[in-house]
Amino acid sequence: MLYLIGLGLGDATDITVKGLQAVKSCSRVYLEAYTSILTVGKEALEEYYGKQLILADRDLVEQGADEILKDADMTDVAFLVVGDPFGATTHSDLVLRAVNAGIPYKVIHNASIMNAVGCCGLQLYNFGETVSLVFWTETWRPESFYDKICKNRAAGLHTLCLLDIKVKEQSIENMMRGKKIYEPPRFMTVAQAADQLIQIIQRRREEGEELGLLTAETICSMHANVLVNANETLRQLLSCDLSAPLHSLVVTGQLHPLEVDMLRLNAEPNSLQHLHMIDSSTYMS
Amino acid sequence: MLYLIGLGLGDATDITVKGLQAVKSCSRVYLEAYTSILTVGKEALEEYYGKQLILADRDLVEQGADEILKDADMTDVAFLVVGDPFGATTHSDLVLRAVNAGIPYKVIHNASIMNAVGCCGLQLYNFGETVSLVFWTETWRPESFYDKICKNRAAGLHTLCLLDIKVKEQSIENMMRGKKIYEPPRFMTVAQAADQLIQIIQRRREEGEELGLLTAETICSMHANVLVNANETLRQLLSCDLSAPLHSLVVTGQLHPLEVDMLRLNAEPNSLQHLHMIDSSTYMS
Repeated sequence: MLYLIGLGLGDATDITVKGLQAVKSCSRVYLEAYTSILTVGKEALEEYYGKQLILADRDLVEQGADEILKDADMTDVAFLVVGDPFGATTHSDLVLRAVNAGIPYKVIHNASIMNAVGCCGLQLYNFGETVSLVFWTETWRPESFYDKICKNRAAGLHTLCLLDIKVKEQSIENMMRGKKIYEPPRFMTVAQAADQLIQIIQRRREEGEELGLLTAETICSMHANVLVNANETLRQLLSCDLSAPLHSLVVTGQLHPLEVDMLRLNAEPNSLQHLHMIDSSTYMS
Repeated sequence: MLYLIGLGLGDATDITVKGLQAVKSCSRVYLEAYTSILTVGKEALEEYYGKQLILADRDLVEQGADEILKDADMTDVAFLVVGDPFGATTHSDLVLRAVNAGIPYKVIHNASIMNAVGCCGLQLYNFGETVSLVFWTETWRPESFYDKICKNRAAGLHTLCLLDIKVKEQSIENMMRGKKIYEPPRFMTVAQAADQLIQIIQRRREEGEELGLLTAETICSMHANVLVNANETLRQLLSCDLSAPLHSLVVTGQLHPLEVDMLRLNAEPNSLQHLHMIDSSTYMS
């Protein structure tokens, strides 16, 4: 049996009881380690489970799936994923390979950022399409996420922005030389995300292009590991300094009075006036 | 401390280890019992936790919040919610009351239908706005969910349809007489959901109104407790007979080849041809 087990979003104890029982019964346990991270590392999980973990990087999952699935028709193998196994990153490819090899599989769900973000008090059924913000390079500065956010806002919907993660990435130079030397991991902060969004707004304004409904004064909700959250305008986020990764960002759409009350609970003092303005006018900042 | 604890979507062991520890430490434990249900009942949970549970129906949560929060500044109180506490139904009101009363609160997340639905292989970031399908009555037959599904499909997006739950509902007669007599609980099945959607399509066609992008041949994915799922056309769903509640339904948008492969894993024989058509033509049925 192949178990795909979600670890949730906090520490070692955020695994479900069912998931923990499965981990303990498996002969091999892989930890997917390139699309997300917990607040604790591999060693803390190993100690908690009483099991050795095998780190599964992108190479292993994408090219070494046979190794992961080896003998899984006769023994139990666990594949651990931060959040939910079918959350932001799905592992459909591994499932399809298992099925084709005649190996049964079982999914043990857990919270992922796709639902836990609701803790900021914004209603999940008022969210539109989720977007991904990628690190810009000198030559690649996509703006499609800005347009998607504006489209959601035009429909009154909030937008969850997943922020880029670069783990075990090679520099172009090392890649071209075939050297398996990896850059240090990078996790996009909300400040970096706000900076890219505001640069798009500025560029479009300067070049006379049409602007969407996302401005520097739009109220946003920012999260670090879904444990800390604070609500400010996009402009204020530029100077925000949240703790350790992972960060995520929600751009609000039309706000219900109850949503405004919830946002106020964690509002930065400077943005209270913006939330107050929402309250007294249109519910659309 | 007020703990809001998600129970996940399966049985008693789908609670997280962190959640279970919190339950065991609380002096009072409430089970929210009107927006969702597990595959096991209150008694099974009580046995598993070794704790008595207090059923919290809508009346208690909406009008008796003071009772739930009583002494929670000095003792620990748990409020258990099927899925995630901020999933499809949020409990913002209870949180706001706690904060206003100076009671700290902590959320322990878990899977909810909003993310676990990804197990069917459809990518969560390709979902648009979630819709709720309500039971029609003789005089109230809203159609807004149909338009939202069509809007999502026009943007290539999938739609999660939450199906209506009626627990402790009074008949209009009993309500007018002030009798606290409740109707038996009702859970909308995917067959009932498909029937309402197809009635909308037929009515609009007969009355010459504009039809959206959802037709009887659109591929849908249906779920019972996120444990069983099957993929068929909307028309085929009419005669489907899934096991116990809760059911949910996903109307597909534009399908990626990997999504088609995943849908095939659980496709009903009769709908394989439709999935094959998708594969060989436009990826938009």
